[in-house]
Amino acid sequence: MKATVAELAARIGGTVVGDAAQSVTGFAGLSEANAGDISFLANPKYAPLLVSTKATAVLVNAAQTDALVTQIVVKSADFAFAMLMSVYGPQPVPPPAGIHPSAVIGERVQFGADVAIGPFVVIGDGAVIGARTVLYPQVVIGAEATLGDDNVLYPHVTVRERCVLGHRVILQPGAVIGSDGFGYATVEGVHHKIPQVGTVVIEDDVEIGANTAIDRARLAATRIGRGAKLDNLVQIAHNVEVGAGGLIAAQAGIAGSTKLGKFVTLAGQCGISGHLTIGDQVVITGQAGVSKDFGARAVVRGSPAMEFKTAQRNEIAVRRLPETQATVKELRARVAELERKLDALLAEKQAEKSAARPAGA
Amino acid sequence: MKATVAELAARIGGTVVGDAAQSVTGFAGLSEANAGDISFLANPKYAPLLVSTKATAVLVNAAQTDALVTQIVVKSADFAFAMLMSVYGPQPVPPPAGIHPSAVIGERVQFGADVAIGPFVVIGDGAVIGARTVLYPQVVIGAEATLGDDNVLYPHVTVRERCVLGHRVILQPGAVIGSDGFGYATVEGVHHKIPQVGTVVIEDDVEIGANTAIDRARLAATRIGRGAKLDNLVQIAHNVEVGAGGLIAAQAGIAGSTKLGKFVTLAGQCGISGHLTIGDQVVITGQAGVSKDFGARAVVRGSPAMEFKTAQRNEIAVRRLPETQATVKELRARVAELERKLDALLAEKQAEKSAARPAGA
Amino acid sequence: MKATVAELAARIGGTVVGDAAQSVTGFAGLSEANAGDISFLANPKYAPLLVSTKATAVLVNAAQTDALVTQIVVKSADFAFAMLMSVYGPQPVPPPAGIHPSAVIGERVQFGADVAIGPFVVIGDGAVIGARTVLYPQVVIGAEATLGDDNVLYPHVTVRERCVLGHRVILQPGAVIGSDGFGYATVEGVHHKIPQVGTVVIEDDVEIGANTAIDRARLAATRIGRGAKLDNLVQIAHNVEVGAGGLIAAQAGIAGSTKLGKFVTLAGQCGISGHLTIGDQVVITGQAGVSKDFGARAVVRGSPAMEFKTAQRNEIAVRRLPETQATVKELRARVAELERKLDALLAEKQAEKSAARPAGA
Repeated sequence: MKATVAELAARIGGTVVGDAAQSVTGFAGLSEANAGDISFLANPKYAPLLVSTKATAVLVNAAQTDALVTQIVVKSADFAFAMLMSVYGPQPVPPPAGIHPSAVIGERVQFGADVAIGPFVVIGDGAVIGARTVLYPQVVIGAEATLGDDNVLYPHVTVRERCVLGHRVILQPGAVIGSDGFGYATVEGVHHKIPQVGTVVIEDDVEIGANTAIDRARLAATRIGRGAKLDNLVQIAHNVEVGAGGLIAAQAGIAGSTKLGKFVTLAGQCGISGHLTIGDQVVITGQAGVSKDFGARAVVRGSPAMEFKTAQRNEIAVRRLPETQATVKELRARVAELERKLDALLAEKQAEKSAARPAGA
Repeated sequence: MKATVAELAARIGGTVVGDAAQSVTGFAGLSEANAGDISFLANPKYAPLLVSTKATAVLVNAAQTDALVTQIVVKSADFAFAMLMSVYGPQPVPPPAGIHPSAVIGERVQFGADVAIGPFVVIGDGAVIGARTVLYPQVVIGAEATLGDDNVLYPHVTVRERCVLGHRVILQPGAVIGSDGFGYATVEGVHHKIPQVGTVVIEDDVEIGANTAIDRARLAATRIGRGAKLDNLVQIAHNVEVGAGGLIAAQAGIAGSTKLGKFVTLAGQCGISGHLTIGDQVVITGQAGVSKDFGARAVVRGSPAMEFKTAQRNEIAVRRLPETQATVKELRARVAELERKLDALLAEKQAEKSAARPAGA
Repeated sequence: MKATVAELAARIGGTVVGDAAQSVTGFAGLSEANAGDISFLANPKYAPLLVSTKATAVLVNAAQTDALVTQIVVKSADFAFAMLMSVYGPQPVPPPAGIHPSAVIGERVQFGADVAIGPFVVIGDGAVIGARTVLYPQVVIGAEATLGDDNVLYPHVTVRERCVLGHRVILQPGAVIGSDGFGYATVEGVHHKIPQVGTVVIEDDVEIGANTAIDRARLAATRIGRGAKLDNLVQIAHNVEVGAGGLIAAQAGIAGSTKLGKFVTLAGQCGISGHLTIGDQVVITGQAGVSKDFGARAVVRGSPAMEFKTAQRNEIAVRRLPETQATVKELRARVAELERKLDALLAEKQAEKSAARPAGA
């Protein structure tokens, strides 16, 4: 990479505050940057680094007056940095275009233009592979599966039979699409496997993380909506539906037949029980355990999960609980003391009354 | 598929309530069904759909009087539907029978009759592959491993050296059998690897989910009992024993040397510490964290896990805690007020007594 | 194996208590051992087995006076047993030395001496494979990745482009090194992928479990420090740093940019939020959810995680909470009764005063 600050700013529609003529030769985070690097400030937690960074220029969402470094002011520093990197940065190394001679291609497989099929890829009968789609080494595509255009499937991905992927889908290494759902009918102590003959439908612009597993539906389809992004080691059970734009962090899990609305966010290691409905834009925090429906825009926390404010109020209450219990203990003693004193007083009064009453009354 | 309601009912021993002469051509869930489909009602939550479904017939556990659709009454609608699907439904597409020429087969490997070995499968020296067992593309079987009859191993499964699988075992894509247990002896700040030279024994009729990992024992064997079913992304540490008929949902984990009795159920994302004993038919709920033994038929919940009723009682208590703390605060004020009034009264009384006493007494 | 107790003791610097002339022919746990086996006692929970074991000799940390079996006293029974097993025990079966003819090797790949490259391995252009390193079948090494000496990569491991592994690194089956970090810039409802062009650096003597995923950095490197050991199904997000000697149990997860000090221990299923700093020798217990920094040597528990003693105190308080609430209810009644009695008394007193006062006063 070799560009001036001015050229970079022009490409992302940014405004330069500082010396626009400097040369930029690399990308780096604020702490690691050296002279020649461009960096970015997205998380305000790191704002103090604007004073100490050695970067030549920094993308910012708003100009910082105390910064010593040249700034490029943009709407989203994160996004602008990503745009510059996708143009000027290093690129992953796909298999060479064309079909590697070692690949095993079934019958009636259809290829779009310019596919890149790596060594030891196996594609089942009747599968469809869209234009410019890249299959890294050892990807396995089942019979009659359909992949759209511009997909990237990294090594050791499995897409089982009849699953359907849209366009621009990215599957990180080891992701499994279309494994059998976990369904058994238990009769007299024997778990009989329930055939899982549905599929998985992954819509356009979805990314799936490493070693994530998405089960095929019992019937119909498990569905991952357009633009959703799933992190590593996520579990999606049979017949789940993830709405468009969902963000699902690592090690989260969704049990069977649960439906998520649009733009739902699941933080890491949270879990959602089966047969639930979660509204649009719901946010489920880390390790939360959701066992009931939540409506649109709810923010939920805890296990069992409840509205964020309620959960937080309860957590604060628990932190004060030992003190509360000490107070209760103290109050019990004080109440007993009050009872003792009052009873003595009443007894004394009673005695006085008896004494004041004429004898024999 | 093309059968009458009467034919289907006969095959599963069901009783028709409605028009037995209708033709059935497909399978579907109650909501998605169209005319010609057969469906089922297993979860009573969905009973209202019996009125609105477009299915031609529905399998039910008990006839619903208000249903508008033809019903087939059976003992287990789930199981009966599964039976019909396994006969009439679509089937997965195994590799063609025989050994694909690209497979790499070690020395002294024994094959039963009619195996199907897919492309790029690797089988180590001295392994045994039972009759009719199917190895999908890119399965790796280690040296001296033994697989029984009628197994199905999906793509990218690894079975490491010397592990033993019974009959009718199913391994979903990416499952790992026989990885080294997590064992180190730490001496002067260095973690020395403890050799893990035991194996994994998987008994008959077990199914293991996608990307689940089962570690080999340090010595002897990690064991998965007959008929147990494990979901995706489950962790089974070295020397664990899962009893017969166990059901382990996704992302659950069991630490080293823990023994589960028969027909234990682990819900999603629960964890069990090492060196514990869990009795027969114990149920561990979602995200529970078990750190002590539980006897037969216990139902446990929470992290740390305790008996379900105790855990639930505590959860309810916590939900009422903010109110309890408000009450305690109020009581403290009322007790202080009582103390003030009573002290005043006693002081007044004391004063009266003093006044009533003759001067100089 | 065939050795006397004396020979084994000599090799590990142990002291024999009992008959040193006996022959040892195998290894086993205390419960499973038969005559001829050597066993070990590491976890004091199993000390009673020293009386009942059929082993010929047992490694112990301190001689047990009531043991009936020959003992070999060593500093660490665990470590000594491991040493004996690595010398006398069964060994895993690596692919034969040399490069299997089916492997696909890119351009400019450098091999050290005596590598063992299994069937269907794929190595990208410009990669470096150190001396004596073993790649089991179907390992994929990306372009320009560097592996040190004496590494062992089990089947279906993926190491993506440009990642760097030190010496003596072990990767269990299905581990993924260098998947893209989970990073998106959301602009007007669209999640734009942020290029993840950093790498993963794994230092010497690290072991990584089955199906564990370690994401490459956005820039710079995700780093696993020397001698750290990671169990199965662990999630390491982009730009995380695990310090030297870390121990990370199964299904634990660390979110982006968090830094762990040296010798940090993470128990199973715990999670750490992003952008945190965790000090040296911190211990995080099972299922804990860490959402703030902790200094050196902290032991933390719970979700949200807090100091162990505080968390435990709160847990005990919650277990007593239903009883506390009963006490509060009882106190409220007693306070009301006190108020009633005292008010009555005061009213009576007031009445007496009024009566005692002259009429019309």
